[in-house]
Amino acid sequence: MNRQRLIGEILRKRSFLCIGLDVDKEKLPPHLLTKEDPIFEFNKAIIDATHHLAVAYKPNTAFYEAYGIDGWKSLEKTIRYLNEKHPEIFTIADAKRGDIGNTSTRYAKAFFEDLDFDSVTVAPYMGCDSVEPFLEFEDKFAIMLALTSNKGGLDFQVSEDSSGETLFEKVLRTSLNWKNSERLMYVVGATRPEFLGKIRSIVPNHFLLVPGIGAQGGDLKAVCQYGLNSDVGLLINSSRGIIYASSGKDFAEQAAAKASEVQQEMAETLSKGSY
Amino acid sequence: MNRQRLIGEILRKRSFLCIGLDVDKEKLPPHLLTKEDPIFEFNKAIIDATHHLAVAYKPNTAFYEAYGIDGWKSLEKTIRYLNEKHPEIFTIADAKRGDIGNTSTRYAKAFFEDLDFDSVTVAPYMGCDSVEPFLEFEDKFAIMLALTSNKGGLDFQVSEDSSGETLFEKVLRTSLNWKNSERLMYVVGATRPEFLGKIRSIVPNHFLLVPGIGAQGGDLKAVCQYGLNSDVGLLINSSRGIIYASSGKDFAEQAAAKASEVQQEMAETLSKGSY
Repeated sequence: MNRQRLIGEILRKRSFLCIGLDVDKEKLPPHLLTKEDPIFEFNKAIIDATHHLAVAYKPNTAFYEAYGIDGWKSLEKTIRYLNEKHPEIFTIADAKRGDIGNTSTRYAKAFFEDLDFDSVTVAPYMGCDSVEPFLEFEDKFAIMLALTSNKGGLDFQVSEDSSGETLFEKVLRTSLNWKNSERLMYVVGATRPEFLGKIRSIVPNHFLLVPGIGAQGGDLKAVCQYGLNSDVGLLINSSRGIIYASSGKDFAEQAAAKASEVQQEMAETLSKGSY
Repeated sequence: MNRQRLIGEILRKRSFLCIGLDVDKEKLPPHLLTKEDPIFEFNKAIIDATHHLAVAYKPNTAFYEAYGIDGWKSLEKTIRYLNEKHPEIFTIADAKRGDIGNTSTRYAKAFFEDLDFDSVTVAPYMGCDSVEPFLEFEDKFAIMLALTSNKGGLDFQVSEDSSGETLFEKVLRTSLNWKNSERLMYVVGATRPEFLGKIRSIVPNHFLLVPGIGAQGGDLKAVCQYGLNSDVGLLINSSRGIIYASSGKDFAEQAAAKASEVQQEMAETLSKGSY
């Protein structure tokens, strides 16, 4: 999917919600466990109930890898279902990959060609040649970790160099010089809105993927205040707060109700900002 | 596998060689391509021919993910074969994972429980709570990226903070305070022997996994000079230089010949150091 189409969908749906499909079998509604592929059935029901409220879905690969081959089958079925039934949806493989060049190329092919995701999250520690292979694919995006929402995000990311620049700022600034850097987006945790203004001054045009709303305690309003740009430029993720709204037979309906709450808040924000 | 057993195997085999199983179908000997699972057949033949020369094998997960479900099946068969036939071998899932706490736990379970690897490589960018979940497993190890062998390794890892400490030094020093830090090992590229002395002064006792010998141009002698500690403390990886020594029917034999060359150099080094 290209950037213009993503922006178009955001404006059409009045939503920049991304739903995280982090599916834990132990949290599934019990009546699904007798199905042949409970994880896929769960995802399918969530997608069917919420696709008009969200512009993106983000399965975190860890939750699928944890179930071995069966988990990978569920992931494959989920992305195929999204691409066939809802080609207007932006898909994110939350995989946080990154390796030396020829190896990153393998990961890029796995996620962009074999699975046909629109984007994949990547880690910056190994630098330019670990990320550029992901940027070679037209209409695909690499979403690089910049400032993460977890406690350990503060261990290294906010370390300042001798000129006072933090590591996450350096990561952002440096990456703008990489080949095809227009295909980058960045992960910025919702739990750090105080840094969002700084981030926007370095990457005014790029999309930011913002996890941490809901279960992790991030605040939607603060994120929008500092993070919106003229193309909206935000994808705000919620996982547990939406997909586990109920563990009963009404789980999809309740997920849609939660997603709708977030979407309405987003629609209001967009209207106020004259988008 | 525990540390004492790994050291025992190194001394018994007179080798600290790790063989990287980074299997690319395009580089496989053509006669294997008609087999049901060419990647597994290749790995099995390489392992059978070299297991007396190496103490560790390291499949890089990217090469398996690139082939989707079939690739994961090959990986699963490879680690099962290693664990059943050669339980004395130290196994490394080169996956470079890392995510927020509950998600890292998923990855840890995938690699330590489902696949039963002895260790997995992890990325440090997200800090303490992204790595500690990997350290909760007895007799398992997380091998954290410190200073990598690729060109982009210099983009951020050698950035100095206001006190003159580089990022990789900070990563090493900080990680020593994490819970179960004795279950950490570190990735240090062979292409940076000039930094190895510094690294050894921060982590004198931990094992270092050193990729970059051979195809990437690293020098075994220099790595040993700065990297050896009283327990040897090194695992030196070679992938392409060994496994693709020949693409003919003699591929396994030729791989063994290359592995033997490295092992002999290692045996000599160990003797000189009175190990």
